Amino acid sequence: MSTIRAARTRLVDAQRAAVRARPFSSTVTIMSEKYRTERDTFGELQVPADRYWGAQTQRSLQNFDIGGPTERLPPPVIKAFGVLKKAASIVNVEYGLDKNVGTAIQQAADDVISGKLYDHFPLVVFQTGSGTQSNMNANEVISNRAIEILGGELGSKKPVHPNDHVNMSQSSNDSFPTVMHVAAVTELSNSLIPALTELRDALDAKSKKFEHIIKIGRTHLQDATPLTLGQEFSGYVQQVANGIERVKDILPRLSFLAQGGTAVGTGLNTRKGFDVKVAAEISKITGLEFKTAPNKASLGAHDALVEAHGALNTVACSLMKIANDIRFLGSGPRCGLGELALPENEPGSSIMPGKVNPTQCEALTMVAAQVIGNQTAVSVAGSNGHFELNVFKPVIIKNVLQSIRLLADGSRSFTKNCVVGIEANEKRINTLLHESLMLATILNRHLGYDNVAKCAKKAHKEGTTLKEATVALGFLTPEEFDEKVRPELMLHPDEA
Amino acid sequence: MSTIRAARTRLVDAQRAAVRARPFSSTVTIMSEKYRTERDTFGELQVPADRYWGAQTQRSLQNFDIGGPTERLPPPVIKAFGVLKKAASIVNVEYGLDKNVGTAIQQAADDVISGKLYDHFPLVVFQTGSGTQSNMNANEVISNRAIEILGGELGSKKPVHPNDHVNMSQSSNDSFPTVMHVAAVTELSNSLIPALTELRDALDAKSKKFEHIIKIGRTHLQDATPLTLGQEFSGYVQQVANGIERVKDILPRLSFLAQGGTAVGTGLNTRKGFDVKVAAEISKITGLEFKTAPNKASLGAHDALVEAHGALNTVACSLMKIANDIRFLGSGPRCGLGELALPENEPGSSIMPGKVNPTQCEALTMVAAQVIGNQTAVSVAGSNGHFELNVFKPVIIKNVLQSIRLLADGSRSFTKNCVVGIEANEKRINTLLHESLMLATILNRHLGYDNVAKCAKKAHKEGTTLKEATVALGFLTPEEFDEKVRPELMLHPDEA
Amino acid sequence: MSTIRAARTRLVDAQRAAVRARPFSSTVTIMSEKYRTERDTFGELQVPADRYWGAQTQRSLQNFDIGGPTERLPPPVIKAFGVLKKAASIVNVEYGLDKNVGTAIQQAADDVISGKLYDHFPLVVFQTGSGTQSNMNANEVISNRAIEILGGELGSKKPVHPNDHVNMSQSSNDSFPTVMHVAAVTELSNSLIPALTELRDALDAKSKKFEHIIKIGRTHLQDATPLTLGQEFSGYVQQVANGIERVKDILPRLSFLAQGGTAVGTGLNTRKGFDVKVAAEISKITGLEFKTAPNKASLGAHDALVEAHGALNTVACSLMKIANDIRFLGSGPRCGLGELALPENEPGSSIMPGKVNPTQCEALTMVAAQVIGNQTAVSVAGSNGHFELNVFKPVIIKNVLQSIRLLADGSRSFTKNCVVGIEANEKRINTLLHESLMLATILNRHLGYDNVAKCAKKAHKEGTTLKEATVALGFLTPEEFDEKVRPELMLHPDEA
Amino acid sequence: MSTIRAARTRLVDAQRAAVRARPFSSTVTIMSEKYRTERDTFGELQVPADRYWGAQTQRSLQNFDIGGPTERLPPPVIKAFGVLKKAASIVNVEYGLDKNVGTAIQQAADDVISGKLYDHFPLVVFQTGSGTQSNMNANEVISNRAIEILGGELGSKKPVHPNDHVNMSQSSNDSFPTVMHVAAVTELSNSLIPALTELRDALDAKSKKFEHIIKIGRTHLQDATPLTLGQEFSGYVQQVANGIERVKDILPRLSFLAQGGTAVGTGLNTRKGFDVKVAAEISKITGLEFKTAPNKASLGAHDALVEAHGALNTVACSLMKIANDIRFLGSGPRCGLGELALPENEPGSSIMPGKVNPTQCEALTMVAAQVIGNQTAVSVAGSNGHFELNVFKPVIIKNVLQSIRLLADGSRSFTKNCVVGIEANEKRINTLLHESLMLATILNRHLGYDNVAKCAKKAHKEGTTLKEATVALGFLTPEEFDEKVRPELMLHPDEA
Repeated sequence: MSTIRAARTRLVDAQRAAVRARPFSSTVTIMSEKYRTERDTFGELQVPADRYWGAQTQRSLQNFDIGGPTERLPPPVIKAFGVLKKAASIVNVEYGLDKNVGTAIQQAADDVISGKLYDHFPLVVFQTGSGTQSNMNANEVISNRAIEILGGELGSKKPVHPNDHVNMSQSSNDSFPTVMHVAAVTELSNSLIPALTELRDALDAKSKKFEHIIKIGRTHLQDATPLTLGQEFSGYVQQVANGIERVKDILPRLSFLAQGGTAVGTGLNTRKGFDVKVAAEISKITGLEFKTAPNKASLGAHDALVEAHGALNTVACSLMKIANDIRFLGSGPRCGLGELALPENEPGSSIMPGKVNPTQCEALTMVAAQVIGNQTAVSVAGSNGHFELNVFKPVIIKNVLQSIRLLADGSRSFTKNCVVGIEANEKRINTLLHESLMLATILNRHLGYDNVAKCAKKAHKEGTTLKEATVALGFLTPEEFDEKVRPELMLHPDEA
Repeated sequence: MSTIRAARTRLVDAQRAAVRARPFSSTVTIMSEKYRTERDTFGELQVPADRYWGAQTQRSLQNFDIGGPTERLPPPVIKAFGVLKKAASIVNVEYGLDKNVGTAIQQAADDVISGKLYDHFPLVVFQTGSGTQSNMNANEVISNRAIEILGGELGSKKPVHPNDHVNMSQSSNDSFPTVMHVAAVTELSNSLIPALTELRDALDAKSKKFEHIIKIGRTHLQDATPLTLGQEFSGYVQQVANGIERVKDILPRLSFLAQGGTAVGTGLNTRKGFDVKVAAEISKITGLEFKTAPNKASLGAHDALVEAHGALNTVACSLMKIANDIRFLGSGPRCGLGELALPENEPGSSIMPGKVNPTQCEALTMVAAQVIGNQTAVSVAGSNGHFELNVFKPVIIKNVLQSIRLLADGSRSFTKNCVVGIEANEKRINTLLHESLMLATILNRHLGYDNVAKCAKKAHKEGTTLKEATVALGFLTPEEFDEKVRPELMLHPDEA
Repeated sequence: MSTIRAARTRLVDAQRAAVRARPFSSTVTIMSEKYRTERDTFGELQVPADRYWGAQTQRSLQNFDIGGPTERLPPPVIKAFGVLKKAASIVNVEYGLDKNVGTAIQQAADDVISGKLYDHFPLVVFQTGSGTQSNMNANEVISNRAIEILGGELGSKKPVHPNDHVNMSQSSNDSFPTVMHVAAVTELSNSLIPALTELRDALDAKSKKFEHIIKIGRTHLQDATPLTLGQEFSGYVQQVANGIERVKDILPRLSFLAQGGTAVGTGLNTRKGFDVKVAAEISKITGLEFKTAPNKASLGAHDALVEAHGALNTVACSLMKIANDIRFLGSGPRCGLGELALPENEPGSSIMPGKVNPTQCEALTMVAAQVIGNQTAVSVAGSNGHFELNVFKPVIIKNVLQSIRLLADGSRSFTKNCVVGIEANEKRINTLLHESLMLATILNRHLGYDNVAKCAKKAHKEGTTLKEATVALGFLTPEEFDEKVRPELMLHPDEA
Repeated sequence: MSTIRAARTRLVDAQRAAVRARPFSSTVTIMSEKYRTERDTFGELQVPADRYWGAQTQRSLQNFDIGGPTERLPPPVIKAFGVLKKAASIVNVEYGLDKNVGTAIQQAADDVISGKLYDHFPLVVFQTGSGTQSNMNANEVISNRAIEILGGELGSKKPVHPNDHVNMSQSSNDSFPTVMHVAAVTELSNSLIPALTELRDALDAKSKKFEHIIKIGRTHLQDATPLTLGQEFSGYVQQVANGIERVKDILPRLSFLAQGGTAVGTGLNTRKGFDVKVAAEISKITGLEFKTAPNKASLGAHDALVEAHGALNTVACSLMKIANDIRFLGSGPRCGLGELALPENEPGSSIMPGKVNPTQCEALTMVAAQVIGNQTAVSVAGSNGHFELNVFKPVIIKNVLQSIRLLADGSRSFTKNCVVGIEANEKRINTLLHESLMLATILNRHLGYDNVAKCAKKAHKEGTTLKEATVALGFLTPEEFDEKVRPELMLHPDEA
């Protein structure tokens, strides 16, 4: 596997560079005002002269004017098409595809993988539900780019035909699901897992730094028995660590690829072994392990992506909880809980001077809300497949990839701009701890629950300390109280 | 109101032109590589020299690298900021703002309304949850553009200060909710309602065209008593017509504006009457009726947008049903129901030649799945406000506007590329009708339910016609059967 | 309408009595161990001798062992069946049904309305999706009870046949939707609206009581400009008042009844006018206005119930916000915000003596979570109808009725056990108010935003008061500060 | 582990017997009209004389009149309380609890486990969000029952105190989460996994039985290339098999127990080792493996249950797809697809004699809709924890257990009443297969995609067979066509 791992490292680096290089200001370049003629089985169409796409892509552009550019299929899907078409071409050469044609296809596919042809993939999510038009978009772009490489004429389909050569042994019905899985696994592995790992490590560093700070616990939002701030943060660490495990646990089922099933899962028009070889090539190109699916009839349902989103949804719920806690603990500066000081990253109010807000927490909880909503979208889409095809493919993968990206970006932003800069307000924490009545809990074993309740209630009612109330009720002397009621004794079980 | 209506017509035309003029290929122009210095209360920052935004926008860009360009706040929000800042400036001049400053602000705001400054609003949804940074983005862009108009130096904040002048008498906490409502009402009124009206009319035309075609009904997917194809389509007409009413019914509560409540709803730092006047100006600019909210403390919760999305969600459920029916009725061509012929818009398969798919239905059902998911996101976000502010504002309005746009675009595409071209396959419909056993239902009154059940079961078991079975069981003569069992008698109640 | 109103009052009283009389301990009585034989078109079956149901009910019981007794169709559906069957019988007598049979049916239906036959309706939600089996359950129970009234033999179907007489001119496909609307409108009118009204009034009383208490506002959970506690509560009042309006606004579309459409919406096997007359009778019986639906083909989709749940979902989001605010404001007693004292209704902890928790808030937020989930269930179910029938009827109405009941009961419990007992902790509120730095906002107009920010930041950094910082920076004298920075000036806009 | 396995077998048998023995007619027995006095730290209360519960339970009953009996905490939670209290008592005796007291507690807990004390647990879901009142309900019932066993006086708290003895070393905050996990793991292991296994096996038997039947495939609902009916069913088998794996994969994280964390996760008031020993005892009692959680601070968030519901949600989506396919394939009998004959279990229509409907599919898809909705409820509830406690515990476990039960019962019902009785309509399948134009796909390799498209389109347009069109266009002779276009060649990849 070491060659796979090396390949992976290269790919990840290239991908990261490409993603980061895509600044706000240049998502797309200006499109030519000249046109050339392309044709499909429906007839001829005019296509912008500087675009590689062909007639079927152009037709989809015209027939599905839904949602605008922000609803385009996301980059990881396009890259995955590059990966797939390259892998298929390598295997097709083994099975008899002309080698020159194959090499040109692979070179064109590399251009797609690199991200530099993203402007040639204009189609939106809300198209045919099988993603056929995006598969044809990939076939057409790669075909024309390969024709160009071989010195042919764009649109001539010679010597590289989009269907007969680029799509050889493939159907949209196995290609698009393959691309969905490749894109999801890639983004989970290369983006989300590293981002969550950074977050976990940053929280863990805080947990260790705060392990000596004893604070009041809160249950039902009400004062409860004490714990250390380190223990509190260790809960967040565990949540994120579990989230990483959850994401890793969904990879095996997601790594099964439908490729080789063709139109209805039977493998018509492929050769025996094509499926296994394609999966192996995809593993090599991506540096991630993929396998051919044992039963291709079942992949039409996209259960694996519904399941995967369940893990993303769980991560979202964890992050919502963590971000909420941190902003409540950081609330104030004077009229809130005030136990944490969060980094001040920007002015907080256009009207209230000096106000600083927990904005990273807010961004992260908005991410969580979106992901919880995406869960519903994915479930509705995933449950509505019929017979040999689920025709909600683009909307499923779009939601899955959006959730992955938002969780990854959101975690990174939260880590960098919030977690690493959190400071404990030890003075405030200590003041609150010693005002609390819940230290009484440790007296249960000495006085019994009912008696201790009397002490706590008396102190609450009269606004006195717990010690004063306990002594006044005659349960303990002041000395006994001080000896028994010590927060540092309340942080762990007793010796057995 | 006629001036309002005229204004509205102008604005709608301008907006549509702007939206349609935003092709795939030029969402954003290339950003300068030169920089100027801007500053806020946190210090200095370098900003691209050809952008109007200032320090707070730049800070947000750097601090919230979440989701990339597709997650930017959508254009209707930016336009609404233009509307608001113009309206506020007009009122502020009444209350003493320097008239030259005011005029320059209004001119700059008009540039924002026109859409041509959209590249100057780079911030994403996942920022501060109050939308403060986008409010500051609007303040900074309008301030700098107004400074430019007045011949000043960008970034100098003179003579037009983003906070003191553009944001005068406003807080993000009342401005952003105002913009949310303005954007939603505008898009509902100018985009969704017209699109649904087109769809309703197209379905109604089909309903009338098909009113003579008697067909088998289907309940539980099983053969049932007959109805006309026109009746079947009239159901869709009614669903869409109800959808239009639903959308109209949410406009009154959405038309209440928070502006004038400032930071916590009390109106601190505004003048009495400012709220009413601003709402009136916004009505004039947009040509749509808006009113100041009677209680500004309650608008922080965004219940009106949660409610509004409930109507969008209902429309999505209606469209899911209609699109599903049409694709099932059009299934085939040989092995499905085959009662409808849907327009052939593109090749259907990259592997199965000659295949044509119900792709517009698929796009529309994917839209529905997304909207049903957005409902969850909006509910989660809308339920999580605290005290005087809900800090899920950007994600709420983004989901609402996405749902509106997808429903509007999806309906338009479905109308144009599917509904208007639907043909009835009368031969097939007639064949199925006469094979059905459910015509038996009309015999209930003559023979009683239990006897009729015997006839139908016998015919089903033996593969004969209902007539043969009924005669064989001795319930009717062939002549009696023909006289009583006529589909055209089964389409309406009996005369009383 | 005054007879309708009187009838309504009677019905409501009877229903409330019936509901309240159903204690935990007697939901169902012991079932006989003797049996009688019933039959349907499928053959014979043994039925408990002391139950009125017949063969089809028994068959459903055996075939759908899903979920157990808690998943039975809820009482309002059963009562609505009584209402419908009574109304239909009255109209059927007009159209020729034997008067004695009709009278017996009406008497039996009254027994169903009264609730005393609820034990005879054992079927669960997860049965046939049209609710046919529950419609037959109603037909069978009423038929047998009417037979009993007329001195006949149970199970003989004479002289009152469940299909030919009780179900006369009806189909499950119009009956069950009718019952869904009748049940929903009844519960909304008689249970939810009164409960929300009580809550609104209780909050309004608190708002008035608290109108003199000035407190710190909180946005982003951070200290903000002040408002009165009365203003804060007035926001809740407005939210609930809007919720009541939302619920009322959905009643008109819900009051349309499908009855008269029969199997596929065409009205086959009914008489002209039957639909209008039945709706009128139902109005008389319930005291609530119902109308026949203008287009019965469209009612199969249940959009009106999806829409209705959208209103319930909005109410849930409002209640979540209100309950969250109240529990956070009541958090403490020593280490939280502590501005409110909530009623102490029960011991709070099994281990921490003296702890009192905001349990009513917790119950209400759990209600909200359930209702937000039900929204998804209803949307999925409502979007999946096909052709002339949506076969998710029982699960739709079950979720709608559960949401109504939980919101109504939850609101009543919250009102009675929490809201009316809330006390303001004025001392604490006042202390926090005067510690806050956000009073600085009022200085914007005197010193400008940037200077005021400097004062607030200095005070925050050095832990001093705002006054000290402002004076130290030389912006104001102490006297000027005291004159300008007064919370009571910050509660409303300035005079124009 | 063999003793664990034997224990498990016993427990499962007992549980199944108890559940099945709970008929509709005897969920609860009549409650006494006599009362006794109980007291807690809040004072005295009257409790029904024949109930074991005490003052805190009674108080909750009165304070939370929300939803009625159907909203009671479900039986598996009550049983799990029995398991926990027994296990804790065994360990507490090790740590010094009086042995007689311990034995009585264990005996009383066994009564709870058996299900026969379910009537003594009247509390509803919508109570305190920590489940404290249900924990106290368990403590009170077991205490009183143990007192009875030891000959004491009910309500005296002597010699078995509900807090000091039954709840010894426990807090609601660790007990209720423990019970949630125990209940979920138990129901998943003993109910859902067996039910899904039955379904998988039944589908697999059909898949094998149908492996010789070649049929038309359908993608986009349109005719596609052929597959065997066995292959089609093998897709369902794989979906359910994957579902079983999904459920098994969530067990490890669910098997971690919070017990021993007490109030805030620190373990205050327990002894070292208590947590490990309790988990071991629970494993022994249930026959299922449980472990103490490595970090108890993180369990307050209930991520494991959110994740678990993600698996249930995925299973629901799978079942929705399978049930939809089967009912569409069984649609007809004359005007639908008609490829499958589903078992006729009951009359289908109250108005259309002889109609038979796919009712088991309908019940199962309604189950799926409910589970998809529950996912949203669980996510909302799971994301809203604060600090050391999530106070949506009862609503989380209620939704999880409802989903488990509905999926298990629904699968069993569907297996027994539908799947095992499915027959293929081979004549119909064969007719459709040979009418299809999509067999053309196999000609791609001989004639190329564009030429084959011409043949298929010509046949479609003219209503002829594919053979006639291909021959007429001169591409093949009739003999060549027959040799090349054979469905049995289209079911798998070609030899390599």
